[in-house]
Amino acid sequence: MEFEEDGIGEECGVFGCVAAGEWPTQLEVAQVLTLGLVALQHRGQESAGVVTSNGASPPTYTSHKGMGLVSSAFPAEALLKLRYGNLGICHTRYSTTGISELQNCQPFVVDTLHGKIAVAHNGELVNARALRKKVMRHGVGLSTCSDSELITQLLALTPPMEELDTPDWVARIKNLMSETPSSYSLLVMYKDVIYAVRDPYGNRPLCIGRVVPISKLHSAAAGEEDTEGWVVSSESCSFQSIGAKYYREVLPGEIVQISRHGVKSLSVVRRPEGDLPAFCIFEYVYFARPDSIFEGQMVYTVRQRCGRQLAIEAPTDADVVSTVPESATPAALGYAQQSGLPYMEVLCKNRYVGRTFIQPNTRLRQLGVAKKFGVLTDNFAGKRVVLIDDSIVRGNTISPIIKLLREAGATEVHIRVASPPIKFPCYMGINIPTKEELIANKPEFKDIAGYIGADSVEYLTVEGLVSAVQEGITSLKEDEMGSSNGCRGKVGHCTACLTGKYPVELEW
Amino acid sequence: MEFEEDGIGEECGVFGCVAAGEWPTQLEVAQVLTLGLVALQHRGQESAGVVTSNGASPPTYTSHKGMGLVSSAFPAEALLKLRYGNLGICHTRYSTTGISELQNCQPFVVDTLHGKIAVAHNGELVNARALRKKVMRHGVGLSTCSDSELITQLLALTPPMEELDTPDWVARIKNLMSETPSSYSLLVMYKDVIYAVRDPYGNRPLCIGRVVPISKLHSAAAGEEDTEGWVVSSESCSFQSIGAKYYREVLPGEIVQISRHGVKSLSVVRRPEGDLPAFCIFEYVYFARPDSIFEGQMVYTVRQRCGRQLAIEAPTDADVVSTVPESATPAALGYAQQSGLPYMEVLCKNRYVGRTFIQPNTRLRQLGVAKKFGVLTDNFAGKRVVLIDDSIVRGNTISPIIKLLREAGATEVHIRVASPPIKFPCYMGINIPTKEELIANKPEFKDIAGYIGADSVEYLTVEGLVSAVQEGITSLKEDEMGSSNGCRGKVGHCTACLTGKYPVELEW
Amino acid sequence: MEFEEDGIGEECGVFGCVAAGEWPTQLEVAQVLTLGLVALQHRGQESAGVVTSNGASPPTYTSHKGMGLVSSAFPAEALLKLRYGNLGICHTRYSTTGISELQNCQPFVVDTLHGKIAVAHNGELVNARALRKKVMRHGVGLSTCSDSELITQLLALTPPMEELDTPDWVARIKNLMSETPSSYSLLVMYKDVIYAVRDPYGNRPLCIGRVVPISKLHSAAAGEEDTEGWVVSSESCSFQSIGAKYYREVLPGEIVQISRHGVKSLSVVRRPEGDLPAFCIFEYVYFARPDSIFEGQMVYTVRQRCGRQLAIEAPTDADVVSTVPESATPAALGYAQQSGLPYMEVLCKNRYVGRTFIQPNTRLRQLGVAKKFGVLTDNFAGKRVVLIDDSIVRGNTISPIIKLLREAGATEVHIRVASPPIKFPCYMGINIPTKEELIANKPEFKDIAGYIGADSVEYLTVEGLVSAVQEGITSLKEDEMGSSNGCRGKVGHCTACLTGKYPVELEW
Amino acid sequence: MEFEEDGIGEECGVFGCVAAGEWPTQLEVAQVLTLGLVALQHRGQESAGVVTSNGASPPTYTSHKGMGLVSSAFPAEALLKLRYGNLGICHTRYSTTGISELQNCQPFVVDTLHGKIAVAHNGELVNARALRKKVMRHGVGLSTCSDSELITQLLALTPPMEELDTPDWVARIKNLMSETPSSYSLLVMYKDVIYAVRDPYGNRPLCIGRVVPISKLHSAAAGEEDTEGWVVSSESCSFQSIGAKYYREVLPGEIVQISRHGVKSLSVVRRPEGDLPAFCIFEYVYFARPDSIFEGQMVYTVRQRCGRQLAIEAPTDADVVSTVPESATPAALGYAQQSGLPYMEVLCKNRYVGRTFIQPNTRLRQLGVAKKFGVLTDNFAGKRVVLIDDSIVRGNTISPIIKLLREAGATEVHIRVASPPIKFPCYMGINIPTKEELIANKPEFKDIAGYIGADSVEYLTVEGLVSAVQEGITSLKEDEMGSSNGCRGKVGHCTACLTGKYPVELEW
Repeated sequence: MEFEEDGIGEECGVFGCVAAGEWPTQLEVAQVLTLGLVALQHRGQESAGVVTSNGASPPTYTSHKGMGLVSSAFPAEALLKLRYGNLGICHTRYSTTGISELQNCQPFVVDTLHGKIAVAHNGELVNARALRKKVMRHGVGLSTCSDSELITQLLALTPPMEELDTPDWVARIKNLMSETPSSYSLLVMYKDVIYAVRDPYGNRPLCIGRVVPISKLHSAAAGEEDTEGWVVSSESCSFQSIGAKYYREVLPGEIVQISRHGVKSLSVVRRPEGDLPAFCIFEYVYFARPDSIFEGQMVYTVRQRCGRQLAIEAPTDADVVSTVPESATPAALGYAQQSGLPYMEVLCKNRYVGRTFIQPNTRLRQLGVAKKFGVLTDNFAGKRVVLIDDSIVRGNTISPIIKLLREAGATEVHIRVASPPIKFPCYMGINIPTKEELIANKPEFKDIAGYIGADSVEYLTVEGLVSAVQEGITSLKEDEMGSSNGCRGKVGHCTACLTGKYPVELEW
Repeated sequence: MEFEEDGIGEECGVFGCVAAGEWPTQLEVAQVLTLGLVALQHRGQESAGVVTSNGASPPTYTSHKGMGLVSSAFPAEALLKLRYGNLGICHTRYSTTGISELQNCQPFVVDTLHGKIAVAHNGELVNARALRKKVMRHGVGLSTCSDSELITQLLALTPPMEELDTPDWVARIKNLMSETPSSYSLLVMYKDVIYAVRDPYGNRPLCIGRVVPISKLHSAAAGEEDTEGWVVSSESCSFQSIGAKYYREVLPGEIVQISRHGVKSLSVVRRPEGDLPAFCIFEYVYFARPDSIFEGQMVYTVRQRCGRQLAIEAPTDADVVSTVPESATPAALGYAQQSGLPYMEVLCKNRYVGRTFIQPNTRLRQLGVAKKFGVLTDNFAGKRVVLIDDSIVRGNTISPIIKLLREAGATEVHIRVASPPIKFPCYMGINIPTKEELIANKPEFKDIAGYIGADSVEYLTVEGLVSAVQEGITSLKEDEMGSSNGCRGKVGHCTACLTGKYPVELEW
Repeated sequence: MEFEEDGIGEECGVFGCVAAGEWPTQLEVAQVLTLGLVALQHRGQESAGVVTSNGASPPTYTSHKGMGLVSSAFPAEALLKLRYGNLGICHTRYSTTGISELQNCQPFVVDTLHGKIAVAHNGELVNARALRKKVMRHGVGLSTCSDSELITQLLALTPPMEELDTPDWVARIKNLMSETPSSYSLLVMYKDVIYAVRDPYGNRPLCIGRVVPISKLHSAAAGEEDTEGWVVSSESCSFQSIGAKYYREVLPGEIVQISRHGVKSLSVVRRPEGDLPAFCIFEYVYFARPDSIFEGQMVYTVRQRCGRQLAIEAPTDADVVSTVPESATPAALGYAQQSGLPYMEVLCKNRYVGRTFIQPNTRLRQLGVAKKFGVLTDNFAGKRVVLIDDSIVRGNTISPIIKLLREAGATEVHIRVASPPIKFPCYMGINIPTKEELIANKPEFKDIAGYIGADSVEYLTVEGLVSAVQEGITSLKEDEMGSSNGCRGKVGHCTACLTGKYPVELEW
Repeated sequence: MEFEEDGIGEECGVFGCVAAGEWPTQLEVAQVLTLGLVALQHRGQESAGVVTSNGASPPTYTSHKGMGLVSSAFPAEALLKLRYGNLGICHTRYSTTGISELQNCQPFVVDTLHGKIAVAHNGELVNARALRKKVMRHGVGLSTCSDSELITQLLALTPPMEELDTPDWVARIKNLMSETPSSYSLLVMYKDVIYAVRDPYGNRPLCIGRVVPISKLHSAAAGEEDTEGWVVSSESCSFQSIGAKYYREVLPGEIVQISRHGVKSLSVVRRPEGDLPAFCIFEYVYFARPDSIFEGQMVYTVRQRCGRQLAIEAPTDADVVSTVPESATPAALGYAQQSGLPYMEVLCKNRYVGRTFIQPNTRLRQLGVAKKFGVLTDNFAGKRVVLIDDSIVRGNTISPIIKLLREAGATEVHIRVASPPIKFPCYMGINIPTKEELIANKPEFKDIAGYIGADSVEYLTVEGLVSAVQEGITSLKEDEMGSSNGCRGKVGHCTACLTGKYPVELEW
């Protein structure tokens, strides 16, 4: 691959669907699952997998997995194969730990004494190493390095299978949750139900949607009797594309059972006294699709607020405000609105530039990121530009862009970053470069503007970011968040990569 | 393929490169060609082909062709195979006439009495049918329905090969130009030179760039001695991504020879007395990448002017101006600037939605274009929206978008189209639906707003479009356009699809 | 697939290799493994897998698996990836139980408390169902239905991992052998050694070869110091193609350790008192390649003896003896030699007929097996033919062949089968049709000649087969069989599919 | 590719089919064509192509081409696409001249003034170079180096297309035949007929079959009214696999028209006075499948006669006669019958050894052909072996086989070759190594036995071969050969590669 991405990577997206009512229904579950995956594709492009169940007793599970984007990994035959599913879960993966091979691809299905379970997982267990050892000490061989396989074996293993007459998967899930505090948003499919689980810190997102007739999609009149199915997803942006209404979030620590009869909250596992929730703040800043809703607010709006806050914290004497397309655009528009400076596009992205098999060591390599962006000279030649970026990780993307703008005639280029400097690694599901690679930890950071060639560089403060994020939440009425069950009321976010304060102890 | 695109299709992009100086040089021609193709990918995604020549006597030609995007059609082995090329031409194709098969893929190479020539063509010969008959009457069997093969055989055929001692390809190209008035931008490679040809009406674009050291790319000081190679391309946006400086356009009717010694204008074939140039106005409106330069002006700027003109012609009493992403954004920003209304994003595009193998006839099909767009509710709920689109072809894309916005809370949705209604077919290289399918020719067009569900619909006038386009050209100094050779000074554009006035007689 | 094979299917072939001496050596282990697999391809064409170890501490394992024939499943990149292996095991699979998917493909690798082990298995555990339950009751989830995964988990599980300071894999293998009597020929790779194991009944074959310099391959002078590596294989036919000398069989119940230091017999697990060995007699009749050696005798020779015995038991008044190519040829030549009748070829096989995507329900389907065979009319027109086949399973292959011969002019067609009728299913690794499908269990069998259209049909008796097989073994000197360790001296074979007498109790 | 084949290569096979009666009929032409190709696969494995016509006016042609074996080049979709064909021609190719690319793959289809024609060709035009020049001088560009394209353009070109009101393809074919004497067996499809053409020397084979109901396939009672279609093929072996009866050969110089109304001989173009027919004698010796019929006799029988003749010319004092499997087996059986020596198999071929991606320069390469053959030691250890081969080209295959046999215990190895030494190149469609590479032209040939390590080597004489071939023809009754039309009666064969006497002047 030619381009080294200068970013941070999400680990995964999970999605599930259960057709409502008497099976089989009209709802084509395999199609819903696949389209749901496509809508979560920004969370992982390495591989994709779907497992469906016909929900019978014993159930027949059908699975399909493939490398690459959903569009190439799921040919027509795959959908044909999966078409008898009445419920199913799926997963799209961005490899962090583990090799890029089909066998690491989720969901993971195992046969147990009580039948098959399927597991899809977004997150990273902070104590995975210790848990692997525990499982292997019990005599289990692990065939992948996937946390999902580990979770699956933990579910099968404790308490011992033989002690139970019928399987109490909820007890097993609770047991699992007592073994590992974070981070996981989990879908466990067993026969005819899906258990949707979020870790007690709510570190990774998970929300529920209700599938209704397309004609009633945006109608307030769509009542319970109109429910065609239930979906559960890492992000609500996937609901739009399959024709579902946003229902509610799975709460931190909550175990929700989704069946053809509906959605039922089974239990909420509490955090230790005094611990705040710790939803990953970078979901707002960078990962999530702008039309997704977390904690009652739209991601786009939060990003706009970050831009406004940045304009207050770091005003600039300049002629135009612009964006590094496409992710920084809401913040740039917010900055423009707040500052009163005109918003202009200065770069245009070639969306076909991707993996090309160009050998390195050539003059073309020197071009770097310039291959990706066209310059809209007329919009900024002879002007002072404030360029908004969402984050700077290694600093090797922004630098050639600044050079490009200057050479095309910008008289000044000021960089304003709509998030604070990233200084610490993440052990909870995000693929951040090592501490040494992060520009914020390098000596050059003292003169970051000089280093990347900008006239000035300013970051949003941690306080500014947190307040921009939490401002929208406090304004939220309690009843919009789903049934109140004691674990709400407090607001908190994981800012570990910015502050080094991890929400749980890291047992490495 | 699931989504019927509601658009009009470009036919092709062509690109060529010659390494300058003593061969072999450091310039990796195969890489330049491939990256050039990637930058022209928006002009055709069906197939791609490259032919290189080592330029020796006799030359060795190497070719690679593949279906699909350049990224998948050109694996590492293909580049390896092509690596000894000192010059080459390439082509990316959007199928209009002809079946989607590898054998229709350009460039077309044929062996003649004087050796092999390779031809890449963008355009559509208005008299192709008559020319095919002529060629076949001479006793030539045609193995494809590609105009490129036809052109190749015409070059081989007249005047008869045996009458010449050494081949006079320029005479043959002129002869070809006397047989067909339009439309073609043509690259003909023979041994060690590329002939770049544009039809006398200049209907399709073609321009030349100069490859310089990356370090001198944006430096005015890059002199003739710094030239590492020459490139020729359908659009100048490709120069940025391979590290070339814009040099000049190939003029309407001009035959330019590009060799390792440089660029030489060989001849300019005149139009009939009184005929104006007829560069396709839809290149500005829709096809070209916004950072490309035609006739001395940036496409993005023209689109912005169209937006401003639209705001003058069709003002709206509304709260926010927005865009159907991404192509209408410059016009929307122009409309916002002129009208003083705030610009807001209301839709977010899922760029992973593409070819998926979903069977039709399902509830999901009803969702239509909604699968492609997420709704940024907070930005427009309770507001009156002016939505700018670049063009409306069949009307089946804009309609569900309007529904989406209304359902998400827009109180009014006004559509403003930054180009006039399309009413006539194109016979010059653009794939426009049949006359009957065009919304502008349907009875429903009388109440277009009612038909698509908008509160109001207004189009830019033909005069408004033409003046927005030509305003930038008149302000251009003559010397920026390359050597003056008599055919400039007049300005004219092909507006046949809007007005039915074709620049040349259609001999069908 | 068009042709329903009228045969019985082998389950698998296993192969392993360890380079001798100081690592790395000149021996290219990945190549040896791949060529070894190719030579065992007749034992399974569905999928193939290789796992190599660099033998370091901790070891790095590299694996490659693919569907289909070795030639397509192992491209050049796969060999490149595997090239640092100093030892390795591999497997070729014919699917019996389990779906045709890559994840069922062996060898199976799991991580345990003491590091990774890899397992390749030929056979079928008679008590697999009970063992699966046992493993799952312990709390292990099983992700495939492969016996190989089951074996791997059993090795990891008992005795509990934590009780051991260092892993005693031999004890664990013995423990496994105490849990399941048959059938398995097993390769277990751990770090720098391969354990080669055969079940106490010796049901599936396994033998050892010594890799020597090609120049000394057939020289008696190749001493211990010339050893370049050790190989272990389901069949000795694979030694020829990688340049190894036949060394000896792994004995029934034996655990052999193969390391760079050589071959060491670690233990021989005894059968219950009174039980005879039970090597599968169909390896001689049908499965094995004719140049393989079992129990000191060449398979081809045994098949010839079967043909001779058949001529004695079932003589025919006919003009020519012929074969159903290619597997019945040794028996046909034996029959001809014994009977004095001339041997002639009457059929010629089109080796390109295989999987073609012809839809059923057509006239061409009626042609059946005729598509596979050309008729050599001149050799038998006007003559009485004795056609030798190795076995008749369903009877649907031989019938159209007889028709073909008759129509082409054979005056009489007599079928002589060089093995007894198959009447019972196999639970020990062979894929035999259900009891009902076997022609020998159908009412039509009473008039089998009439049913298949032959003038007469005769089978070899069970006694005749057993004596033809065992005749060669008794003549064998003890020292040729490797070190005598008490379990030899008795001769016995599994004839369960012919007699219904299974060597072990079937705990289903 | 690992194994350098030590053989000589056939160029191609052609096959055609026309459904008889009113269209559409029950006959699935696309299936017949594909199975016909499979049966001719031994004549070319590089690529395969099918073109069908619906036979309408104007006709719709559908084509599919692919690289590799028919089984992989023709997936189910290809057959689906072709299913509306009422007639069609196809081609399987072994590349001699020309690169291995899809665009060189036949049949070649071109559009002419009178519509499309499709051409499939087996052979090599002796004056191709001059003809190419002629065509190009006329102004035709040639896009491949295929003789098939050349033939197609020649058919389109002379006499000039415009002089004809309706196309007289037969006159054009005759014109073509006047331009080139040899070698070609040609199928030309135009609209609803196939013209089957053989050059006046009959150098390449071509014969016709009649498709009848399967039930009447071998019945003499199948009358004209039972005809379901007509097929034309390079070899009659393909008739068996599609359910057709052998009808007759196309005669040297004959143009046969095949339509739904039947088979009609249109013309027979004569050879120059005094010239004998020149059917390639190596079709008998090596290329053809043994069950094919040429000139009224079965190939297998001719090979057996060659073996007998060889036993007379070159008797051996030995213990067993054997074969290099599989092609030499009929000759070996003939030698055994004539000599009275027992026939034994000594080698067993691994049919899975093919293209494997083993790097050269390894110890495994030294094994050479041994990888392909297993040794059946028991059959020859301690014995003197006469090994029959069909031909020796470079001598690099037989040599390691002899070594193999000796090392496994053969006391003597005598080589008897069932054809004379090959000394001259073929310019008529066979891919023979250059003169220098042929073992018969090397100095070592004086002591060929010593060179390849045999105890003795003897070849069949040219006279012996010719008489073994022609013996069967003279015994043939005239009426079995189809309608007598003056060009029969004389017998002659091309032995140019053995004698240097080419049937026509080579105009190179």
